[in-house]
Amino acid sequence: MENATLIVLLALLQYIWFTVCVGLARGKYNVDAPACDGDENFARVFRVQQNTMEQLIVFIPASYAFAWYLSPLWVLATGVAFILGRFLYSAEYTRDPKTRTPGMGLTLATNAVLLVGAFYGLAKAMFF
Amino acid sequence: MENATLIVLLALLQYIWFTVCVGLARGKYNVDAPACDGDENFARVFRVQQNTMEQLIVFIPASYAFAWYLSPLWVLATGVAFILGRFLYSAEYTRDPKTRTPGMGLTLATNAVLLVGAFYGLAKAMFF
Amino acid sequence: MENATLIVLLALLQYIWFTVCVGLARGKYNVDAPACDGDENFARVFRVQQNTMEQLIVFIPASYAFAWYLSPLWVLATGVAFILGRFLYSAEYTRDPKTRTPGMGLTLATNAVLLVGAFYGLAKAMFF
Repeated sequence: MENATLIVLLALLQYIWFTVCVGLARGKYNVDAPACDGDENFARVFRVQQNTMEQLIVFIPASYAFAWYLSPLWVLATGVAFILGRFLYSAEYTRDPKTRTPGMGLTLATNAVLLVGAFYGLAKAMFF
Repeated sequence: MENATLIVLLALLQYIWFTVCVGLARGKYNVDAPACDGDENFARVFRVQQNTMEQLIVFIPASYAFAWYLSPLWVLATGVAFILGRFLYSAEYTRDPKTRTPGMGLTLATNAVLLVGAFYGLAKAMFF
Repeated sequence: MENATLIVLLALLQYIWFTVCVGLARGKYNVDAPACDGDENFARVFRVQQNTMEQLIVFIPASYAFAWYLSPLWVLATGVAFILGRFLYSAEYTRDPKTRTPGMGLTLATNAVLLVGAFYGLAKAMFF
């Protein structure tokens, strides 16, 4: 499971970076905790981090299941696609939330491939 | 761990469905990103997805620990209870948040059973 | 992986406690679902739970990777530091969000140690 772990750790590193950006944005746009809104620019940075968390909760277990039951090699490809998709999403979203579709689409497509692949490999392991 | 993985993948599939519902609700109720409030009906759909994520972060690792240290069979039962509880919660919450108690209770009870069972099995593995 | 699982289950127990606190705070400060703001004291309790979830998504997979690839013993130390850091954060944040830095710092430092250690152990396993 080395490849799956490598991908997961890299995605977590990226996520920590997005979290640090939220902290910096609190200072830059004067949004004091516990508030999470009030400034449109802060809200964008915050939503990038929140949305990444929403996607990681699928990505992490699905990557391990995909690597275990289907392919410990191809999990590298979906992992790279996920991480690139998240950087794209972050760049789009902080510029203009209306342009976030490609980055979001790449993330959703990656998670869909991971889930379908994991289901397929799991079905083979359980029933054949 | 096939059973635990099967249950986790099914719960993730349901969660992705709740996420898609948030995207559709943005269009239906005219809530543009990065806003996550402003319309009561949108807020309900959004909270169903958010609350499911809040519960999944317990459910996923607890299901694997329960299956590994206690019972790879009974994890199917808790898994089905969790997923049904989430559909119930979603139906209740989008109709009227005040009626969400049964669905929420079923979810919390399931996670409590998973945690207690995992602790019990782990204690047996570590100390006996 | 008994030690990693023990730590993860304890951290989840603490997180469930923070979640219960949010439910109690809804009643105490009259914040009806789906609202998640409107009262500063409620918002603080809510943010403690949300922030703990944001950190758990790193802590859980990083603890397992750290225990597997580097040290199944030292994962106990990072685990205790994480849980103490979260209790500290909760106490600070509900009193005054401006004083939350030590608890947040301890959490971030713990996750950083876990990630760096896991990367190091993984690199040794993959390339040496």
